[in-house]
Amino acid sequence: MQTVTALVFNDFETLDLFGPVEMFGSLSEDYRLQFASLSGGIISNHHGVKLHTLALDELTAATDILLIVGGPGTRQLVHDSPFLQALEHLTHSATWVLSVCTGSALLAKAGVLDGKRATSNKRAWQWVTQQSDQVYWVAQARWVVDGKFYTSSGVSAGMDMALGFIADRHGVNAARQIAHDIEYRWQEDADVDDFGVI
Amino acid sequence: MQTVTALVFNDFETLDLFGPVEMFGSLSEDYRLQFASLSGGIISNHHGVKLHTLALDELTAATDILLIVGGPGTRQLVHDSPFLQALEHLTHSATWVLSVCTGSALLAKAGVLDGKRATSNKRAWQWVTQQSDQVYWVAQARWVVDGKFYTSSGVSAGMDMALGFIADRHGVNAARQIAHDIEYRWQEDADVDDFGVI
Repeated sequence: MQTVTALVFNDFETLDLFGPVEMFGSLSEDYRLQFASLSGGIISNHHGVKLHTLALDELTAATDILLIVGGPGTRQLVHDSPFLQALEHLTHSATWVLSVCTGSALLAKAGVLDGKRATSNKRAWQWVTQQSDQVYWVAQARWVVDGKFYTSSGVSAGMDMALGFIADRHGVNAARQIAHDIEYRWQEDADVDDFGVI
Repeated sequence: MQTVTALVFNDFETLDLFGPVEMFGSLSEDYRLQFASLSGGIISNHHGVKLHTLALDELTAATDILLIVGGPGTRQLVHDSPFLQALEHLTHSATWVLSVCTGSALLAKAGVLDGKRATSNKRAWQWVTQQSDQVYWVAQARWVVDGKFYTSSGVSAGMDMALGFIADRHGVNAARQIAHDIEYRWQEDADVDDFGVI
Protein backbone atom coordinates (compact mmCIF):
# COMPACT_ATOMS: atom_id res chain seq x y z
CA MET A 1 0.00 0.00 0.00
CA GLN A 2 1.37 3.40 -1.04
CA THR A 3 0.21 6.69 0.43
CA VAL A 4 -0.61 9.59 -1.87
CA THR A 5 -0.53 12.92 -0.04
CA ALA A 6 -2.27 15.74 -1.88
CA LEU A 7 -0.98 19.11 -0.70
CA VAL A 8 -3.67 21.73 -1.22
CA PHE A 9 -4.20 25.41 -0.47
CA ASN A 10 -6.94 28.00 -0.82
CA ASP A 11 -7.99 28.59 -4.42
CA PHE A 12 -6.59 25.33 -5.72
CA GLU A 13 -8.03 24.24 -9.08
CA THR A 14 -10.79 21.66 -8.54
CA LEU A 15 -10.05 19.18 -11.31
CA ASP A 16 -6.25 19.42 -10.82
CA LEU A 17 -6.83 17.64 -7.55
CA PHE A 18 -9.84 15.41 -8.02
CA GLY A 19 -8.95 14.05 -11.45
CA PRO A 20 -5.82 12.28 -10.17
CA VAL A 21 -7.66 11.39 -6.93
CA GLU A 22 -10.22 9.48 -9.01
CA MET A 23 -7.45 7.57 -10.78
CA PHE A 24 -5.49 6.59 -7.65
CA GLY A 25 -8.71 5.96 -5.73
CA SER A 26 -9.72 3.44 -8.36
CA LEU A 27 -6.76 1.29 -7.25
CA SER A 28 -7.79 1.20 -3.61
CA GLU A 29 -5.82 -1.98 -2.92
CA ASP A 30 -2.60 -0.22 -3.89
CA TYR A 31 -3.10 3.44 -2.95
CA ARG A 32 -4.56 5.31 0.00
CA LEU A 33 -5.12 9.07 -0.21
CA GLN A 34 -4.69 11.79 2.39
CA PHE A 35 -5.40 15.49 1.97
CA ALA A 36 -3.04 17.96 3.60
CA SER A 37 -2.55 21.68 3.88
CA LEU A 38 0.03 23.74 5.72
CA SER A 39 -2.23 24.47 8.71
CA GLY A 40 -5.01 21.90 8.26
CA GLY A 41 -8.75 22.53 8.50
CA ILE A 42 -11.11 23.61 5.77
CA ILE A 43 -9.50 24.64 2.49
CA SER A 44 -11.82 26.45 0.07
CA ASN A 45 -11.57 27.45 -3.53
CA HIS A 46 -13.08 29.73 -6.17
CA HIS A 47 -15.57 27.01 -7.18
CA GLY A 48 -17.16 26.94 -3.72
CA VAL A 49 -15.47 23.68 -2.70
CA LYS A 50 -14.73 23.37 1.03
CA LEU A 51 -12.39 20.44 1.66
CA HIS A 52 -11.37 19.12 5.06
CA THR A 53 -7.59 18.69 5.31
CA LEU A 54 -5.03 17.59 7.86
CA ALA A 55 -2.11 19.78 8.90
CA LEU A 56 1.24 18.42 7.78
CA ASP A 57 2.09 17.40 11.37
CA GLU A 58 -1.25 15.54 11.69
CA LEU A 59 -0.61 13.14 8.82
CA THR A 60 -0.88 9.54 9.98
CA ALA A 61 1.04 7.91 7.13
CA ALA A 62 4.38 8.75 5.54
CA THR A 63 4.13 10.19 2.03
CA ASP A 64 5.18 7.87 -0.76
CA ILE A 65 3.70 9.99 -3.53
CA LEU A 66 3.31 13.75 -3.22
CA LEU A 67 0.63 15.36 -5.40
CA ILE A 68 0.89 19.12 -5.80
CA VAL A 69 -1.86 20.86 -7.72
CA GLY A 70 -2.25 24.27 -9.33
CA GLY A 71 -4.85 26.99 -9.48
CA PRO A 72 -5.21 30.72 -8.83
CA GLY A 73 -3.80 30.27 -5.31
CA THR A 74 -0.34 29.56 -6.71
CA ARG A 75 0.09 33.22 -7.68
CA GLN A 76 0.53 34.13 -4.00
CA LEU A 77 2.26 30.92 -2.94
CA VAL A 78 5.33 31.53 -5.11
CA HIS A 79 6.05 34.35 -2.64
CA ASP A 80 5.23 32.31 0.49
CA SER A 81 8.49 31.10 2.04
CA PRO A 82 6.99 28.83 4.73
CA PHE A 83 4.88 27.07 2.09
CA LEU A 84 7.83 26.67 -0.29
CA GLN A 85 10.03 25.33 2.51
CA ALA A 86 7.38 22.78 3.48
CA LEU A 87 7.02 21.79 -0.16
CA GLU A 88 10.78 21.36 -0.50
CA HIS A 89 10.87 19.19 2.63
CA LEU A 90 7.96 17.02 1.46
CA THR A 91 9.53 16.66 -1.97
CA HIS A 92 12.78 15.37 -0.54
CA SER A 93 11.05 12.77 1.64
CA ALA A 94 8.63 11.50 -1.04
CA THR A 95 9.51 8.65 -3.39
CA TRP A 96 7.57 10.25 -6.23
CA VAL A 97 6.38 13.82 -6.81
CA LEU A 98 3.51 14.56 -9.20
CA SER A 99 2.36 18.04 -10.17
CA VAL A 100 -0.65 19.21 -12.15
CA CYS A 101 -0.98 22.53 -13.99
CA THR A 102 0.69 25.44 -12.19
CA GLY A 103 1.72 23.10 -9.38
CA SER A 104 5.03 22.82 -11.22
CA ALA A 105 5.53 26.57 -10.78
CA LEU A 106 5.55 25.92 -7.02
CA LEU A 107 8.04 23.08 -7.38
CA ALA A 108 10.20 25.26 -9.61
CA LYS A 109 10.14 28.17 -7.17
CA ALA A 110 11.02 25.79 -4.33
CA GLY A 111 14.11 24.88 -6.35
CA VAL A 112 13.48 21.16 -6.50
CA LEU A 113 13.17 21.07 -10.30
CA ASP A 114 16.60 22.61 -10.91
CA GLY A 115 18.23 20.83 -13.83
CA LYS A 116 15.10 18.79 -14.50
CA ARG A 117 12.76 18.64 -17.49
CA ALA A 118 9.20 19.70 -16.61
CA THR A 119 6.00 21.04 -18.11
CA SER A 120 2.99 23.02 -16.88
CA ASN A 121 -0.23 24.75 -17.92
CA LYS A 122 0.20 26.12 -21.45
CA ARG A 123 -2.30 28.91 -20.76
CA ALA A 124 -0.07 30.28 -17.96
CA TRP A 125 3.22 29.44 -19.66
CA GLN A 126 4.98 32.78 -19.42
CA TRP A 127 4.25 33.20 -15.72
CA VAL A 128 5.21 29.62 -14.90
CA THR A 129 8.51 29.65 -16.75
CA GLN A 130 9.45 32.97 -15.11
CA GLN A 131 9.46 31.21 -11.72
CA SER A 132 12.77 29.51 -12.50
CA ASP A 133 15.36 29.63 -15.26
CA GLN A 134 17.01 26.51 -13.83
CA VAL A 135 14.30 24.20 -15.22
CA TYR A 136 14.26 22.76 -18.76
CA TRP A 137 10.67 23.75 -19.54
CA VAL A 138 9.05 21.50 -22.16
CA ALA A 139 6.51 23.48 -24.20
CA GLN A 140 5.00 20.50 -26.01
CA ALA A 141 4.04 17.62 -23.72
CA ARG A 142 0.92 16.27 -22.03
CA TRP A 143 3.20 15.31 -19.18
CA VAL A 144 6.94 14.96 -18.54
CA VAL A 145 8.82 12.39 -16.45
CA ASP A 146 12.28 13.20 -15.10
CA GLY A 147 13.60 11.06 -12.27
CA LYS A 148 11.04 11.00 -9.50
CA PHE A 149 9.12 13.96 -10.93
CA TYR A 150 5.98 13.71 -13.07
CA THR A 151 4.78 17.16 -14.16
CA SER A 152 1.62 17.60 -16.23
CA SER A 153 0.10 20.29 -18.39
CA GLY A 154 -3.05 22.19 -17.44
CA VAL A 155 -5.91 20.86 -15.31
CA SER A 156 -7.26 17.91 -17.35
CA ALA A 157 -3.78 16.68 -18.19
CA GLY A 158 -3.40 15.57 -14.58
CA MET A 159 -5.77 12.67 -15.24
CA ASP A 160 -3.73 11.45 -18.20
CA MET A 161 -0.53 11.79 -16.19
CA ALA A 162 -1.94 9.91 -13.19
CA LEU A 163 -2.88 7.02 -15.47
CA GLY A 164 0.58 7.27 -17.04
CA PHE A 165 2.15 6.98 -13.59
CA ILE A 166 -0.03 3.97 -12.80
CA ALA A 167 0.92 2.42 -16.15
CA ASP A 168 4.62 2.87 -15.34
CA ARG A 169 4.19 1.10 -11.99
CA HIS A 170 1.51 -1.52 -12.76
CA GLY A 171 1.58 -1.93 -16.55
CA VAL A 172 -0.47 -0.20 -19.22
CA ASN A 173 -3.32 -2.67 -18.96
CA ALA A 174 -3.97 -1.74 -15.32
CA ALA A 175 -4.26 1.92 -16.33
CA ARG A 176 -6.47 1.06 -19.32
CA GLN A 177 -8.74 -0.94 -17.01
CA ILE A 178 -9.25 2.08 -14.76
CA ALA A 179 -9.99 4.28 -17.78
CA HIS A 180 -12.49 1.71 -19.01
CA ASP A 181 -14.18 1.40 -15.61
CA ILE A 182 -14.71 5.14 -15.31
CA GLU A 183 -15.47 5.57 -19.03
CA TYR A 184 -12.49 7.87 -19.47
CA ARG A 185 -10.91 8.42 -22.88
CA TRP A 186 -7.30 8.28 -21.76
CA GLN A 187 -4.70 9.98 -23.92
CA GLU A 188 -1.87 7.51 -23.36
CA ASP A 189 1.00 9.31 -25.08
CA ALA A 190 2.80 11.83 -22.88
CA ASP A 191 4.34 13.52 -25.92
CA VAL A 192 1.07 14.31 -27.72
CA ASP A 193 -0.10 17.77 -26.71
CA ASP A 194 -3.13 19.38 -28.35
CA PHE A 195 -2.63 22.51 -26.27
CA GLY A 196 1.13 23.06 -26.51
CA VAL A 197 2.81 26.42 -26.77
CA ILE A 198 3.52 27.17 -30.44
CA MET B 1 -26.41 34.21 -12.25
CA GLN B 2 -27.67 30.64 -11.99
CA THR B 3 -27.15 28.47 -8.93
CA VAL B 4 -25.94 24.90 -9.34
CA THR B 5 -26.72 22.76 -6.30
CA ALA B 6 -24.73 19.54 -6.11
CA LEU B 7 -26.53 17.00 -3.92
CA VAL B 8 -23.96 14.61 -2.44
CA PHE B 9 -23.91 11.72 0.02
CA ASN B 10 -21.36 9.45 1.64
CA ASP B 11 -19.41 7.34 -0.86
CA PHE B 12 -20.18 9.56 -3.82
CA GLU B 13 -17.82 9.11 -6.78
CA THR B 14 -15.15 11.82 -6.75
CA LEU B 15 -14.94 12.72 -10.43
CA ASP B 16 -18.74 12.47 -10.95
CA LEU B 17 -18.94 15.58 -8.82
CA PHE B 18 -15.78 17.55 -9.41
CA GLY B 19 -15.63 17.12 -13.19
CA PRO B 20 -18.86 19.08 -13.75
CA VAL B 21 -17.91 21.46 -10.90
CA GLU B 22 -14.76 22.39 -12.85
CA MET B 23 -16.82 23.10 -15.97
CA PHE B 24 -19.47 25.26 -14.28
CA GLY B 25 -16.86 26.89 -12.07
CA SER B 26 -15.01 28.01 -15.18
CA LEU B 27 -18.01 30.23 -16.01
CA SER B 28 -17.99 32.03 -12.69
CA GLU B 29 -19.85 35.04 -14.08
CA ASP B 30 -22.81 32.83 -14.96
CA TYR B 31 -22.82 30.03 -12.37
CA ARG B 32 -22.33 29.81 -8.63
CA LEU B 33 -22.00 26.42 -6.96
CA GLN B 34 -23.29 25.15 -3.62
CA PHE B 35 -22.75 21.72 -2.10
CA ALA B 36 -25.63 20.12 -0.24
CA SER B 37 -26.42 16.90 1.58
CA LEU B 38 -29.53 15.75 3.38
CA SER B 39 -28.22 16.62 6.84
CA GLY B 40 -25.26 18.86 6.04
CA GLY B 41 -21.78 18.67 7.54
CA ILE B 42 -18.84 16.62 6.36
CA ILE B 43 -19.56 14.10 3.60
CA SER B 44 -16.81 11.56 3.01
CA ASN B 45 -16.12 9.00 0.35
CA HIS B 46 -14.11 5.88 -0.45
CA HIS B 47 -11.28 8.01 -1.87
CA GLY B 48 -10.69 9.75 1.46
CA VAL B 49 -12.37 13.00 0.38
CA LYS B 50 -14.08 14.92 3.20
CA LEU B 51 -16.28 17.66 1.77
CA HIS B 52 -18.10 20.30 3.79
CA THR B 53 -21.78 20.54 2.78
CA LEU B 54 -24.85 22.52 3.74
CA ALA B 55 -28.06 20.85 4.84
CA LEU B 56 -30.91 21.32 2.37
CA ASP B 57 -32.61 23.81 4.72
CA GLU B 58 -29.38 25.81 5.05
CA LEU B 59 -29.05 26.61 1.35
CA THR B 60 -28.87 30.34 0.77
CA ALA B 61 -29.83 30.37 -2.90
CA ALA B 62 -32.67 28.67 -4.79
CA THR B 63 -31.57 25.83 -7.03
CA ASP B 64 -31.67 26.52 -10.75
CA ILE B 65 -29.63 23.49 -11.73
CA LEU B 66 -29.60 20.32 -9.66
CA LEU B 67 -26.55 18.08 -10.05
CA ILE B 68 -26.94 14.55 -8.75
CA VAL B 69 -23.89 12.31 -8.84
CA GLY B 70 -23.32 8.57 -8.56
CA GLY B 71 -20.96 6.26 -6.74
CA PRO B 72 -21.04 3.27 -4.39
CA GLY B 73 -23.32 5.18 -1.98
CA THR B 74 -26.21 4.95 -4.45
CA ARG B 75 -26.60 1.23 -3.69
CA GLN B 76 -28.08 2.06 -0.29
CA LEU B 77 -29.82 5.28 -1.31
CA VAL B 78 -32.22 3.54 -3.71
CA HIS B 79 -33.76 2.11 -0.51
CA ASP B 80 -33.69 5.40 1.43
CA SER B 81 -37.17 6.97 1.32
CA PRO B 82 -36.29 10.31 2.98
CA PHE B 83 -33.44 10.79 0.50
CA LEU B 84 -35.60 9.89 -2.50
CA GLN B 85 -38.39 12.20 -1.34
CA ALA B 86 -35.93 15.08 -0.95
CA LEU B 87 -34.53 14.31 -4.40
CA GLU B 88 -38.03 14.31 -5.90
CA HIS B 89 -38.81 17.64 -4.25
CA LEU B 90 -35.56 19.22 -5.45
CA THR B 91 -36.12 17.89 -8.95
CA HIS B 92 -39.55 19.48 -9.21
CA SER B 93 -38.30 22.88 -8.07
CA ALA B 94 -35.17 22.95 -10.27
CA THR B 95 -35.18 24.35 -13.80
CA TRP B 96 -32.64 21.76 -14.95
CA VAL B 97 -31.59 18.42 -13.51
CA LEU B 98 -28.24 16.87 -14.42
CA SER B 99 -27.10 13.41 -13.34
CA VAL B 100 -23.75 11.67 -13.68
CA CYS B 101 -23.15 7.92 -13.64
CA THR B 102 -25.45 6.04 -11.24
CA GLY B 103 -27.04 9.32 -10.19
CA SER B 104 -29.70 8.51 -12.79
CA ALA B 105 -30.55 5.34 -10.82
CA LEU B 106 -31.53 7.64 -7.94
CA LEU B 107 -33.65 9.84 -10.21
CA ALA B 108 -35.27 6.72 -11.71
CA LYS B 109 -36.02 5.26 -8.29
CA ALA B 110 -37.51 8.60 -7.20
CA GLY B 111 -39.88 8.28 -10.16
CA VAL B 112 -38.96 11.56 -11.80
CA LEU B 113 -37.65 9.95 -14.99
CA ASP B 114 -40.89 8.07 -15.73
CA GLY B 115 -41.57 8.23 -19.46
CA LYS B 116 -38.20 9.91 -20.12
CA ARG B 117 -35.14 8.84 -22.08
CA ALA B 118 -32.05 8.52 -19.90
CA THR B 119 -28.64 6.90 -19.69
CA SER B 120 -26.22 5.89 -16.94
CA ASN B 121 -22.96 4.10 -16.16
CA LYS B 122 -22.51 1.26 -18.66
CA ARG B 123 -20.46 -0.74 -16.13
CA ALA B 124 -23.47 -0.85 -13.74
CA TRP B 125 -26.12 -1.07 -16.43
CA GLN B 126 -28.10 -4.06 -15.20
CA TRP B 127 -28.43 -2.70 -11.66
CA VAL B 128 -29.33 0.79 -12.85
CA THR B 129 -32.00 -0.30 -15.29
CA GLN B 130 -33.55 -2.55 -12.64
CA GLN B 131 -34.37 0.53 -10.58
CA SER B 132 -37.24 1.46 -12.91
CA ASP B 133 -38.99 -0.06 -15.90
CA GLN B 134 -40.74 3.24 -16.55
CA VAL B 135 -37.62 4.85 -18.04
CA TYR B 136 -36.52 4.51 -21.68
CA TRP B 137 -32.92 3.53 -20.94
CA VAL B 138 -30.51 4.44 -23.75
CA ALA B 139 -27.65 1.92 -23.89
CA GLN B 140 -25.51 3.85 -26.39
CA ALA B 141 -25.02 7.50 -25.49
CA ARG B 142 -22.39 9.68 -23.83
CA TRP B 143 -25.30 11.68 -22.46
CA VAL B 144 -29.04 12.02 -23.09
CA VAL B 145 -31.22 15.13 -22.98
CA ASP B 146 -34.98 14.81 -22.40
CA GLY B 147 -36.87 17.91 -21.36
CA LYS B 148 -35.15 19.38 -18.34
CA PHE B 149 -33.12 16.24 -17.68
CA TYR B 150 -29.51 15.69 -18.76
CA THR B 151 -28.28 12.22 -17.78
CA SER B 152 -24.73 11.10 -18.50
CA SER B 153 -22.86 7.83 -18.69
CA GLY B 154 -20.23 6.80 -16.14
CA VAL B 155 -17.95 9.12 -14.19
CA SER B 156 -15.91 10.91 -16.88
CA ALA B 157 -18.95 11.39 -19.11
CA GLY B 158 -20.22 13.98 -16.66
CA MET B 159 -17.56 16.41 -17.88
CA ASP B 160 -18.63 16.02 -21.51
CA MET B 161 -22.28 16.42 -20.52
CA ALA B 162 -21.62 19.54 -18.45
CA LEU B 163 -19.90 21.13 -21.43
CA GLY B 164 -22.82 19.97 -23.60
CA PHE B 165 -25.23 21.69 -21.23
CA ILE B 166 -23.15 24.86 -21.33
CA ALA B 167 -23.05 24.66 -25.14
CA ASP B 168 -26.85 24.40 -25.23
CA ARG B 169 -27.23 27.50 -23.08
CA HIS B 170 -24.26 29.67 -24.19
CA GLY B 171 -23.28 28.31 -27.62
CA VAL B 172 -20.73 25.69 -28.55
CA ASN B 173 -17.87 28.19 -28.67
CA ALA B 174 -18.31 29.05 -24.99
CA ALA B 175 -18.00 25.36 -24.12
CA ARG B 176 -15.01 24.92 -26.44
CA GLN B 177 -13.32 27.90 -24.78
CA ILE B 178 -13.64 26.28 -21.35
CA ALA B 179 -12.26 23.00 -22.70
CA HIS B 180 -9.35 24.89 -24.25
CA ASP B 181 -8.64 26.82 -21.06
CA ILE B 182 -8.44 23.68 -18.95
CA GLU B 183 -6.74 21.65 -21.71
CA TYR B 184 -9.64 19.20 -21.84
CA ARG B 185 -10.26 17.05 -24.91
CA TRP B 186 -14.05 17.45 -25.01
CA GLN B 187 -16.08 14.77 -26.78
CA GLU B 188 -18.77 17.05 -28.18
CA ASP B 189 -21.18 14.47 -29.61
CA ALA B 190 -23.67 13.10 -27.07
CA ASP B 191 -24.44 10.12 -29.31
CA VAL B 192 -20.87 8.82 -29.60
CA ASP B 193 -20.25 6.28 -26.85
CA ASP B 194 -17.01 4.31 -26.69
CA PHE B 195 -18.25 2.45 -23.63
CA GLY B 196 -21.83 1.60 -24.60
CA VAL B 197 -23.59 -1.63 -23.73
CA ILE B 198 -23.36 -4.01 -26.69
